[in-house]
Amino acid sequence: MVNLNGLSAFPITPSNRDGEVDAGALRALLEPLIAAKVDSIGLLGSTGSYPYFSRDERRRAVQAAVAMAGKTPILVGVGALRTDDAVRLAQDARDAGAAAGLLAAVSYTPLTDDEVFEHFQTVVRESGLPICIYDNPGTTHFRFTPALVGRLSQLDGIIAVKSPALDASTLAGHIAELRAIVPSGFSLGYSADWNCTEALLAGGETWYSVLAGVFPRICFEIVRAAASGDAARARQLDARLEPVWHLLKTFSSLRVAYAIANLKGICAAEPPRPILPLPPDAQKKVGEVLAAMDIG
Amino acid sequence: MVNLNGLSAFPITPSNRDGEVDAGALRALLEPLIAAKVDSIGLLGSTGSYPYFSRDERRRAVQAAVAMAGKTPILVGVGALRTDDAVRLAQDARDAGAAAGLLAAVSYTPLTDDEVFEHFQTVVRESGLPICIYDNPGTTHFRFTPALVGRLSQLDGIIAVKSPALDASTLAGHIAELRAIVPSGFSLGYSADWNCTEALLAGGETWYSVLAGVFPRICFEIVRAAASGDAARARQLDARLEPVWHLLKTFSSLRVAYAIANLKGICAAEPPRPILPLPPDAQKKVGEVLAAMDIG
Repeated sequence: MVNLNGLSAFPITPSNRDGEVDAGALRALLEPLIAAKVDSIGLLGSTGSYPYFSRDERRRAVQAAVAMAGKTPILVGVGALRTDDAVRLAQDARDAGAAAGLLAAVSYTPLTDDEVFEHFQTVVRESGLPICIYDNPGTTHFRFTPALVGRLSQLDGIIAVKSPALDASTLAGHIAELRAIVPSGFSLGYSADWNCTEALLAGGETWYSVLAGVFPRICFEIVRAAASGDAARARQLDARLEPVWHLLKTFSSLRVAYAIANLKGICAAEPPRPILPLPPDAQKKVGEVLAAMDIG
Repeated sequence: MVNLNGLSAFPITPSNRDGEVDAGALRALLEPLIAAKVDSIGLLGSTGSYPYFSRDERRRAVQAAVAMAGKTPILVGVGALRTDDAVRLAQDARDAGAAAGLLAAVSYTPLTDDEVFEHFQTVVRESGLPICIYDNPGTTHFRFTPALVGRLSQLDGIIAVKSPALDASTLAGHIAELRAIVPSGFSLGYSADWNCTEALLAGGETWYSVLAGVFPRICFEIVRAAASGDAARARQLDARLEPVWHLLKTFSSLRVAYAIANLKGICAAEPPRPILPLPPDAQKKVGEVLAAMDIG
């Protein structure tokens, strides 16, 4: 069984504005993540703009990543608006050698809990791909209750949840509530980078990290400090990243991740339209923050 | 120039659960709307589940509707997550003979006003299809400010806005705010059936109606009463529909519209998965409400 605990790095998926994936740039982006021995790579997450890419482009990206990943598990976003499309994407990811799928409750018509349950049940049953529940209300506008996570965690093949660390003060309670209803071994992890050090210290097992998609080493140090019980060290490293957290919160994680990858010279990627690159003044601000820090 | 004022009826798009459109059932659903001389038909709106259908199925639905519509203008939902997809859908609708396109700010990554402006500008420029702005924050989670509607209304080919009538008490102010910044002849219309009588009485020019997709005649009577200044008559008819408004608010307009179309024997449609038909007890409730009324 794949183990998603630790640091999961979520890179952008380099492409042009029409959604054609640049596999060479993707390899250049993944190489330092693999070298840094991140615990997994979250390919085609929200930062990887998964719903904006066609099935063919998504398959090409997974194949390119798996071919170079070695022992690093590739977790692949397989979400889609329609259940049958999500099934096909999960089958593609499985066939390409992905370790697990990350499945969000992508919605247009607001979904009920029963609809989301059936959606997940169908995808995991029809694909056989281990699935991490992707709770991302900021994009899907669906919020998983602990009760629904509990129901889903009973299904064979649903192995983990990635929850949003929306409020540092409620993380310990959220973890305790989930832990009480999910099976032993079910992995509880968090995204929203600026609250994830606290999520790890509160008992979260995985940091699903946007920053680790471009700067894996300092994120890895935080994960190791938290795992060894050195809360002071973890918080000290996290505090150094405060200017970056401010950028992510101000300009959106996705758009800042594109700007950083381009500023580092790894690629010249544009988000698929209608998403636009950051305006020049915001890109300049990102550059200034990076130049003033040493987090390479 | 197409005129969208009056009553625009929004039917479901009959299909099976895998999103294959039943063109015969669609024709059976449209025939009474055309016979009732609704002012336009809103095909593939949110009630028509547009984002859940493939490009081919959407084109088939538009072709079937245009072929039988005669002089009734067909307004077609052309929204998509990606700008290039929305362009292609608008071109398809134009080529099939649609009178106008209904374009929503479909989003996954939350969009900025500038991104939405460029998205709309590209679609209207590349398709030449007259466009009605579709402000539907309940599904897209993007909210059009009056300022953004004003900017868009200056573009050639953007002719109307469909706003959500979220609060009857603020409609007059909303209409006045928009009227002050849009060009003369730009059409201001509303959806959310239960507040649309008040929207018409406050000066709204179009009722984009889910109920008119199955019961056009009583909706048409309300529109005529409002247009002739007979507010008492319009409100009296609206009050008769209170049990239906309660159903739409309780079980969601889309799912109730499927249930009504099926109960009337017009089709045996299922929403595309993951959306599920109403559970049996809710369908029973819908049947009871309809049986107790005479709104045929």
